Amino acid sequence: MRVALLAHEKFPDRSKTANGILRYSDHEVVAVLDRENDGANVSDFLSDVQDAPIVSTMSEVEEPVDALVVGIAPIGGGFDETWRPDVRNALERGCEVISGLHYFLEDDSEFRNLAEEHGGELWDVRRPHEDLGVADGVADQVDAEVILTVGTDCSVGKMTATMELLEAAQARGESAAFIPTGQTGIMIEGWGNPIDRVVSDFTAGAVEEMILERGNDYDYLFVEGQASIVHPAYSAVTTGILHGSMADKLVLCHEEGRETVHGYDQDLPDLDTYVDLFESVAAPVADSEVVAGMLNTRDVPDDETAREAVEEYAEDLGVSATDPIRFDADEVLDAVL
Amino acid sequence: MRVALLAHEKFPDRSKTANGILRYSDHEVVAVLDRENDGANVSDFLSDVQDAPIVSTMSEVEEPVDALVVGIAPIGGGFDETWRPDVRNALERGCEVISGLHYFLEDDSEFRNLAEEHGGELWDVRRPHEDLGVADGVADQVDAEVILTVGTDCSVGKMTATMELLEAAQARGESAAFIPTGQTGIMIEGWGNPIDRVVSDFTAGAVEEMILERGNDYDYLFVEGQASIVHPAYSAVTTGILHGSMADKLVLCHEEGRETVHGYDQDLPDLDTYVDLFESVAAPVADSEVVAGMLNTRDVPDDETAREAVEEYAEDLGVSATDPIRFDADEVLDAVL
Repeated sequence: MRVALLAHEKFPDRSKTANGILRYSDHEVVAVLDRENDGANVSDFLSDVQDAPIVSTMSEVEEPVDALVVGIAPIGGGFDETWRPDVRNALERGCEVISGLHYFLEDDSEFRNLAEEHGGELWDVRRPHEDLGVADGVADQVDAEVILTVGTDCSVGKMTATMELLEAAQARGESAAFIPTGQTGIMIEGWGNPIDRVVSDFTAGAVEEMILERGNDYDYLFVEGQASIVHPAYSAVTTGILHGSMADKLVLCHEEGRETVHGYDQDLPDLDTYVDLFESVAAPVADSEVVAGMLNTRDVPDDETAREAVEEYAEDLGVSATDPIRFDADEVLDAVL
Repeated sequence: MRVALLAHEKFPDRSKTANGILRYSDHEVVAVLDRENDGANVSDFLSDVQDAPIVSTMSEVEEPVDALVVGIAPIGGGFDETWRPDVRNALERGCEVISGLHYFLEDDSEFRNLAEEHGGELWDVRRPHEDLGVADGVADQVDAEVILTVGTDCSVGKMTATMELLEAAQARGESAAFIPTGQTGIMIEGWGNPIDRVVSDFTAGAVEEMILERGNDYDYLFVEGQASIVHPAYSAVTTGILHGSMADKLVLCHEEGRETVHGYDQDLPDLDTYVDLFESVAAPVADSEVVAGMLNTRDVPDDETAREAVEEYAEDLGVSATDPIRFDADEVLDAVL
């Protein structure tokens, strides 16, 4: 699919979804829309991802485009009216428009009418499908081994760690798939359940459903975790994914230097506590064991210090660890597979 | 409020909501609708609750009625079309109709029109309100001490235990309120958030919201817990309530003889494990301690055996325990307050 990524005023530092698509998806990105960086290129800001020109508006994108992806999420998840001409232009060209906003494009009558008129589609990835239900507790019956990333907090790099593990496994020739639980993962993979948006009774069920759907077609499933088991607001999501996935193996993700819950006045417990909690809460449902660690060292200035931090993290956890971006996910793959 | 309770073919063994209202609410129950027990009285089946005649249809209820409550929940939560004449009759009399079904009465155009025409109202208690949000992690800032019932499984008696604790505290002259998290509690209290129906991201937030709303008007808040922290399908709900309430004290509820998760092929862990899990998962967010136990002995034939079971339960937990229905919640109140 040929896509344009809307990332006005937020590229690249606050455009997590756009960056994830540039880095991991199979889509060809033909342009990034960011009126603040008009005329630059993706490669001026990000390395190791596909390059694309940055333009101000959708109307400046001359190549054929299959989809426009809203690649940013403003606080509150609302729709910024200054984006309306871009979405309108995409729909008039018959494009699909894919959005992870809380504001559903499908509920916007202008967009719905334009999509109908020009044969385009609207996909609100945060809208769960209608047939979700409660878990049956059977995710462990699939053939695949299930590996779940868990974390010490939100935004420590679970999605990235999961993607890097997947790619490392595939690079070794393993049959492996990604189970997407959040909007970026869903947009990259083109399917998935937005677990933070499902009814709380169906949290585990929505994960189990995905495991059952893919679990007999692959040897390994890498499940994207969310939040943390001691997060004051989002622990329900974490626990539902832990039990719904019935994971065989857990990979604990952390960001170097993070000491408090992001945005909250709450200290993170020590790493042993995390390992204990994830394993002991999982235990009555599934034998899930922390087998590797992923440390996000993006704020560590040099590789040598980062390597030391990773080694200390591995020692604290008692398992092998790496930074999958700065170093390589392959370093821990033997422990994970 | 004067209410009629719809409980066709399910009274009293499968009418948990109707029974809860008969036992705990301030409403005056003028009739129970159950065409299988037409002509009998509530007191023929249940003791220790208000009495009311049982009739076949709403049209047979001659007294003035303020509300018709759908007091049963069929598997799947659908609306049974044989109930339509009862709901229609209630609405034509200008009554409110209160329902905890998954099927929302407000989405039924006949009911909506009748309510509008006759000035009645429809209250679907399982529909969460629109303004829910994420928790701020501040429930511990209220004046009240927060006591949460937790359980080893679903349907072990958490709602009942919570109500009995509330009444025992009030009987001692304490200033105490109930925080309803499920449909029966919401119907009894006339307000509350149906936690199992909220978006998973808002699970903790929906509990916190209620604590903040009542927490400075009372000395004690008794929060109704849901499911269990190791439930394969519903643990997300449990964990969200645990963290959202930031409870000071926990009361562990269990049913005598329950050894596996109801409806699942999963053994319950031992009681020590439950105490450990609830306390250790809570700890990074709040100092929550298991201070008492509630044992449901409804399937134990005699009081002596039940007393022995309660004593063993107390010993296993290392705290005082009771069966709040067969014996008295007051027995553990000193440990709870």
